[in-house]
Amino acid sequence: MDRIDRPPARPEPLWERVLRADRRAVARALRMVDDRAGDWETLLSALWPHAGRARVVGITGTAGAGKSTLVDRLVERLRARGQRVGVLAVDPSSPFSGGAILGDRIRMQRHFTDPGVFIRSLATRGHLGGLSRSAADAVVVLDASGHDVVLVETVGVGQDELDVARLADTTVVVVPPGLGDDVQAIKAGILEIADVFAVNKADRDGADATVRDLEQMIALGHEAAMRAASAGPGHSAAGWRVAREALERLERWIPPVVKTVASRGEGIDDLLRAIDAHAAQSARDERADSRASARAIHHFELAFDERLGQAARTQLASRLEEARRRVCARLEDPYAAAGRLTAELLGAAR
Amino acid sequence: MDRIDRPPARPEPLWERVLRADRRAVARALRMVDDRAGDWETLLSALWPHAGRARVVGITGTAGAGKSTLVDRLVERLRARGQRVGVLAVDPSSPFSGGAILGDRIRMQRHFTDPGVFIRSLATRGHLGGLSRSAADAVVVLDASGHDVVLVETVGVGQDELDVARLADTTVVVVPPGLGDDVQAIKAGILEIADVFAVNKADRDGADATVRDLEQMIALGHEAAMRAASAGPGHSAAGWRVAREALERLERWIPPVVKTVASRGEGIDDLLRAIDAHAAQSARDERADSRASARAIHHFELAFDERLGQAARTQLASRLEEARRRVCARLEDPYAAAGRLTAELLGAAR
Repeated sequence: MDRIDRPPARPEPLWERVLRADRRAVARALRMVDDRAGDWETLLSALWPHAGRARVVGITGTAGAGKSTLVDRLVERLRARGQRVGVLAVDPSSPFSGGAILGDRIRMQRHFTDPGVFIRSLATRGHLGGLSRSAADAVVVLDASGHDVVLVETVGVGQDELDVARLADTTVVVVPPGLGDDVQAIKAGILEIADVFAVNKADRDGADATVRDLEQMIALGHEAAMRAASAGPGHSAAGWRVAREALERLERWIPPVVKTVASRGEGIDDLLRAIDAHAAQSARDERADSRASARAIHHFELAFDERLGQAARTQLASRLEEARRRVCARLEDPYAAAGRLTAELLGAAR
Repeated sequence: MDRIDRPPARPEPLWERVLRADRRAVARALRMVDDRAGDWETLLSALWPHAGRARVVGITGTAGAGKSTLVDRLVERLRARGQRVGVLAVDPSSPFSGGAILGDRIRMQRHFTDPGVFIRSLATRGHLGGLSRSAADAVVVLDASGHDVVLVETVGVGQDELDVARLADTTVVVVPPGLGDDVQAIKAGILEIADVFAVNKADRDGADATVRDLEQMIALGHEAAMRAASAGPGHSAAGWRVAREALERLERWIPPVVKTVASRGEGIDDLLRAIDAHAAQSARDERADSRASARAIHHFELAFDERLGQAARTQLASRLEEARRRVCARLEDPYAAAGRLTAELLGAAR
């Protein structure tokens, strides 16, 4: 009997398995991206054309604001709408001291068995460029694998959160009530990233006062931004640019302040309405396209810096090692050495 | 009467004025570094050989822990010892929304008129690489201008703080009492950076419990690090490396937990003793040299990445612009475009 020669079965590549939302493949892809292991760049190249459909919502705020419970409730409502949800918890903890994350995730464990929900902590920052690069790329994986909404949870308001906010369509800042003096402390930087405020644990004393404080802060920040933007780049050019950007944002959208009691599921619908309203406003905005473009460019710049840094280090190898020795021996300062090596590398390329 | 021809008086260069601690020159240098303006790299090259003598102490912790009051008290004691002190407040706020910072700084205003104290907020992150690069370079300026101690105050525990911790000889993590559930939340990441814990506002309820919680956390973290380090790089290579590093640190130094009431000046001497003890241990440690080297290399890598990124962007100019357009138009994915441009740039240089 003649045997029909068939080509050997081609093993399905990882990216194809990610696209059809194979959970093990998604987990493996996220691990590759987080560890910068294997051919993670080719993987992302293959996934990228299929990304860009998910709504990305950043959830940030200080520790103890109840973010994880709120995320848990949002997942519940989004699932009730029939949407697939990815959750990315970005935390600068190391895996071994990440008890807080694990503890939080336990509250969400009812979702772990739901095939429409994918939850992942990004806890490592071992590679060059750190968390924000991993987070940007992890969003691409969850987006390409068909999640309708990707919730990105971060702690605090540092550079990480500002970077993550650049990835998000909408950023929710969660605030506990009765901050008192501390409302001052959270002020810094927050106006630049908040699209929606959630005063969580709103059944506690001081919730209404916190809502008023936040609304006043937004009004004062608006005035301050107007003053700073019209004053021009006197003291600090960078500061002036930030002020102008903030002013532009506030002229398009004033962040609403919503009260929630996540532990009892109260106010979650209001919060989702505010998120949806922000998305609708963004879509109407003539800049909607420019926001998608800005995000694509952000991905590109991150990828370019990382790739360039790696390639340069590979190419310079021994000269770089020598420069490090010279710097340590104080034979050369770091700035001069950096300039010299850059010239050696790029001078030859004209 | 014969006029003796003299060479025209050479204007004293900025770096020389910084070295003799001319306050206006120091302020200008810091502004240049923060804005990446003028010839800031040459300035830093000139200052670098004179840096490396200051003790750099990082002070970090969540908002509301009372860091600024504690820093104020530390400045007071260090001045009483006759030491010159630089204070760098690193905050991701923008200048216009930085009310918290200004408010905090007002508490310290008695030090503003003291010529032995230089206080500066680094609030911008407008340029590539952001806060941690500015902070690293600002420390060089304050160090070279003869400050014996540089206190670097940061908020929270994000990537910024971890980066700043790499600059510091000693990192103090300030914790308010009665964290309750939140002690879980601060756990993440903190063991990697804390050399000393200060439980501030220790006259409040729950201070002793917080001290116990922290001590227990350190013990548990130590055990977890031992387990993770001995388990090998299974799940995450980056995580394993972090665990091994943490274990090495804990084997050399267990962070002491000190109680302070900064508002009344209590416990500050204990805190300074703990900081001094850590410095003494570091000096005894055969790795003291390697710590200084690691810091110099850290400066070099930051400078190299920044210089390389800028030079590459200048050289690629129009090709980069075209790549951005292609990425936005979805003709090319960001990862492929980054790889292609890197090859174009470095391929020619062999």
